[in-house]
Amino acid sequence: MGEVRNCTGRIGIVDTTFSSIDTASIALKEIRRLASRVEIRRYTVPGIRDTPLACKALIEKERCGTVLVTGMVSKKGVEKQVEHQAVLGIMWVQLQTNRHVVTAFFDENEAKEKSKLYNIVVDRIRKHALNALKLLAMPESLTDYAGLGLRQGSRDVGQFRV
Amino acid sequence: MGEVRNCTGRIGIVDTTFSSIDTASIALKEIRRLASRVEIRRYTVPGIRDTPLACKALIEKERCGTVLVTGMVSKKGVEKQVEHQAVLGIMWVQLQTNRHVVTAFFDENEAKEKSKLYNIVVDRIRKHALNALKLLAMPESLTDYAGLGLRQGSRDVGQFRV
Amino acid sequence: MGEVRNCTGRIGIVDTTFSSIDTASIALKEIRRLASRVEIRRYTVPGIRDTPLACKALIEKERCGTVLVTGMVSKKGVEKQVEHQAVLGIMWVQLQTNRHVVTAFFDENEAKEKSKLYNIVVDRIRKHALNALKLLAMPESLTDYAGLGLRQGSRDVGQFRV
Amino acid sequence: MGEVRNCTGRIGIVDTTFSSIDTASIALKEIRRLASRVEIRRYTVPGIRDTPLACKALIEKERCGTVLVTGMVSKKGVEKQVEHQAVLGIMWVQLQTNRHVVTAFFDENEAKEKSKLYNIVVDRIRKHALNALKLLAMPESLTDYAGLGLRQGSRDVGQFRV
Amino acid sequence: MGEVRNCTGRIGIVDTTFSSIDTASIALKEIRRLASRVEIRRYTVPGIRDTPLACKALIEKERCGTVLVTGMVSKKGVEKQVEHQAVLGIMWVQLQTNRHVVTAFFDENEAKEKSKLYNIVVDRIRKHALNALKLLAMPESLTDYAGLGLRQGSRDVGQFRV
Repeated sequence: MGEVRNCTGRIGIVDTTFSSIDTASIALKEIRRLASRVEIRRYTVPGIRDTPLACKALIEKERCGTVLVTGMVSKKGVEKQVEHQAVLGIMWVQLQTNRHVVTAFFDENEAKEKSKLYNIVVDRIRKHALNALKLLAMPESLTDYAGLGLRQGSRDVGQFRV
Repeated sequence: MGEVRNCTGRIGIVDTTFSSIDTASIALKEIRRLASRVEIRRYTVPGIRDTPLACKALIEKERCGTVLVTGMVSKKGVEKQVEHQAVLGIMWVQLQTNRHVVTAFFDENEAKEKSKLYNIVVDRIRKHALNALKLLAMPESLTDYAGLGLRQGSRDVGQFRV
Repeated sequence: MGEVRNCTGRIGIVDTTFSSIDTASIALKEIRRLASRVEIRRYTVPGIRDTPLACKALIEKERCGTVLVTGMVSKKGVEKQVEHQAVLGIMWVQLQTNRHVVTAFFDENEAKEKSKLYNIVVDRIRKHALNALKLLAMPESLTDYAGLGLRQGSRDVGQFRV
Repeated sequence: MGEVRNCTGRIGIVDTTFSSIDTASIALKEIRRLASRVEIRRYTVPGIRDTPLACKALIEKERCGTVLVTGMVSKKGVEKQVEHQAVLGIMWVQLQTNRHVVTAFFDENEAKEKSKLYNIVVDRIRKHALNALKLLAMPESLTDYAGLGLRQGSRDVGQFRV
Repeated sequence: MGEVRNCTGRIGIVDTTFSSIDTASIALKEIRRLASRVEIRRYTVPGIRDTPLACKALIEKERCGTVLVTGMVSKKGVEKQVEHQAVLGIMWVQLQTNRHVVTAFFDENEAKEKSKLYNIVVDRIRKHALNALKLLAMPESLTDYAGLGLRQGSRDVGQFRV
């Protein structure tokens, strides 16, 4: 974790006005806690379909080394394919810019109780904030956690051995 | 809102002959009301599959800083995948041109009553016209509305806190 | 309509050997009737998955200003995703070449009676031939028909007002 | 057919180790029979998801004018989307290289009886081999067969007239 | 097999922290066993959506001639489209870099018993490690196995003849 704590790069956070949870605040707080010397740039857009270009702008114009993109997904009606479109856009951005974009979306139906949903989102964003910082600071450090069944939004499932 | 009212950039509106609602007129009126100094360029195409190239032309040939693309989606039969194709095209246009394209499509089945459908469309286009103007004038202003559960076509759902 | 009748550009027609209806003949006849001075280039390929490259060749090698692509879609078994693939390819071609490609595909199951299906196809191709000519001659002329609920393959549904 | 018989270009064949039918042999034999002067380059890959890059290599490194890509599709479980991914990849290859790639895949469930499936595959590959040769030798020759309801893997359905 | 055993190129392995099985270890051991002179570069990312950029980095920055990408797919809830997105990203990487990326993903539901699932994964990764090495060392060697119904994760189904 030393390499994250001392990291001096720049990270981007993308969030949306559509989300009912203030995802960027969770991400901002966690990144500051984990890596106080990292610079943060933030870009808020209407919905997740607008996030790919925001990621690209943070990388190309703001020179962020990695971006954490957050947002809420609605899985009903016309919204069904929206996450797929956003993720494909984010994929292209990564391959155009050669920078990792870590996606931390949540579906408002992942839990019926609001407090449970909130906890899922906090857990996911915090863990993905750490992932984004590791990819920014020292990608090879993730190898220490390879195949461990890590989860964001719930407990790790652990490694399965025979 | 000051930055929108005084904005002097150029915005594009794309609409279709397929739509049964005159979406561009709603957008035009709202943009003129909100930002009288913004220049507007309009491009009408047959259907939403033709909108991505129209967006690209407004950005590259007409030098629009942002585009609001409107249109009606039919979700039956052969038409089912059409919105997905259009949105992917619009995604590529954004990543090719580095300009935001705000999508304000509606599905003719969102409401059974015509007057209700019309109201949804008006609400969505007006709110997305404001989004497009903010992205044109001062993207960072959207951060004031981050995570507030904003909706276009219905009431905002608000922020969920714990 | 004057701008179409006097148009002197070049239009491409793409068709397939897979189709059971001679779509190109319908398109050719209509284009000659509407705009006798327009030059026509035609490219026949096996199936609709082969049409995107044919469109690109007509635009880049034959310098067509617009292309009308026709073909039959079979919606059963392995064929289900074929139209989606073709349309995505056509989308990329448009964004690569900055030229409109108007798609006039039909699904063999749109009507059970063959004569009814034929009438649908004729109506769709004729109307899209006119759309392609307008986009070739004077794109802004389509604005006169914006939001009018125009349909290809059936009667226009008209505009919905409140 | 004269133009095919005397064709002197170079054609590529892509096949897979996944397929239970030796598709390349069928293609090789048919191409040699139809156009003995055409040069053939072959590239075998593990599965159909590996075929797009093989097509690209045959076109760019081996300078094949057209490629016939063959392979077996399994439509169960995780394999369901594989054909779609391969076909999209093949679409991009065509638009990157400006060369036709004719796809002759089969689904192992197209027929329950193995001998019937084999006959379907032979019919499809032979007819698509001829298509690929025509596109290589003289694309415009396909116009003679436009709208004739040609099929690969079964009898032609013929043209529908009214 | 001689060409694999003596191969001196460089291969990449991509794996994830999400997987509950340590896929990279299986791949590493098999590659060292089969081709002790091949150099190996490894890149661990959070989940399979992050793998395309990792593949690209191994090819472009680490100059790997081929990459074997491993990972676990969850087919429930929001995760359903994730494999499709990853595979499309991997397709683009291959066509951007002209290098093969061999995909060895597994779905945690392929077997109910954990030991059976583990065996499937070991079998698949070992066989695809060999495929990747063959593509690295001598692509044409795969032609000896063309159309033999080879499988990864289960027994080969063999060739079907008539």
